[in-house]
Amino acid sequence: MDKRTEIRLAGEGGQGMILAGIILAEAAAIYDDKQVTQTQSYGPEARGGASRSEVVISDGEIDHPEVLSADVVVALSQEAYKKFAKTLQAGGLLIVDKDRVKTAADFNGIKIPIARIALETTGKAITANTVALGVLVGLTNLVSRAAIEKAVTARAPKGTEEMNRKALQAGFAAAEQVRTTA
Amino acid sequence: MDKRTEIRLAGEGGQGMILAGIILAEAAAIYDDKQVTQTQSYGPEARGGASRSEVVISDGEIDHPEVLSADVVVALSQEAYKKFAKTLQAGGLLIVDKDRVKTAADFNGIKIPIARIALETTGKAITANTVALGVLVGLTNLVSRAAIEKAVTARAPKGTEEMNRKALQAGFAAAEQVRTTA
Repeated sequence: MDKRTEIRLAGEGGQGMILAGIILAEAAAIYDDKQVTQTQSYGPEARGGASRSEVVISDGEIDHPEVLSADVVVALSQEAYKKFAKTLQAGGLLIVDKDRVKTAADFNGIKIPIARIALETTGKAITANTVALGVLVGLTNLVSRAAIEKAVTARAPKGTEEMNRKALQAGFAAAEQVRTTA
Repeated sequence: MDKRTEIRLAGEGGQGMILAGIILAEAAAIYDDKQVTQTQSYGPEARGGASRSEVVISDGEIDHPEVLSADVVVALSQEAYKKFAKTLQAGGLLIVDKDRVKTAADFNGIKIPIARIALETTGKAITANTVALGVLVGLTNLVSRAAIEKAVTARAPKGTEEMNRKALQAGFAAAEQVRTTA
């Protein structure tokens, strides 16, 4: 069977997690030659609350674009954590914003101050989504670093390419630090 | 059963149909209070070729985010037409770019020079996706005009809001012209 990896990226509306999902999907499909689907679901909670983006990456054809049990969940806000941490499969990787998410007692995921790193690196809170992508790829190698860098650059609003590359590198560095101290 | 409408937006990479799908989804979910899923699928053709975005709009919960047989297909390029016109269900609405798509002999959809209208209205080819949204909503009322205008404005890159509103209005006007002369 083809390897299938399911990723759920979640945060508050305005944190750019939908764009992050598209960038991850494009990195995998366009630059890493995988098959990918990327989905947003908007329920009654769409006006405010948690925004989420789902990416399925596979070596072969994807029959169902839904994320059924996530291999990776990234949560940048408390509500996102509350809603989606439980959709992680056993043994899956949970990444949360250290400053913004108060975790349960049995939490055994990774905590990184993603929004703070974004602000300190670029001065712009909106680059938290790019930092999150750097952390995700740095920890998982789901896509190659070259692929995610190309995809981030291609999707960055004109004039923000360099800023977003810096944010991505900061995400890689934060992941590296976790890897080497974990 | 809840009413479920499936829309497929397709064009060349770079024509902005993925963003158009997100804008349509946000219009329906955030401003019109529907449940929505919006999906991109990237296959081996992702590097070049047709880019497509799928939106499912429902009054109730959406079990499957896939577009199975489309109620509406918008095709801005020949390849998009070739690949996706056949996924339209019987009685569905097919909208193509009049200048860019050479249609089959039995074509019974709507032809509107969407890219040309974009260029003439805003001077920017990239606004074709917004014109396409105007045409789509003008012909179908899938979402309200107020909702799509708010969603376009919210997602337009900073400084391009007015340009995109004009492109949307031009799409409405083109739809109106088809309605009154059809």
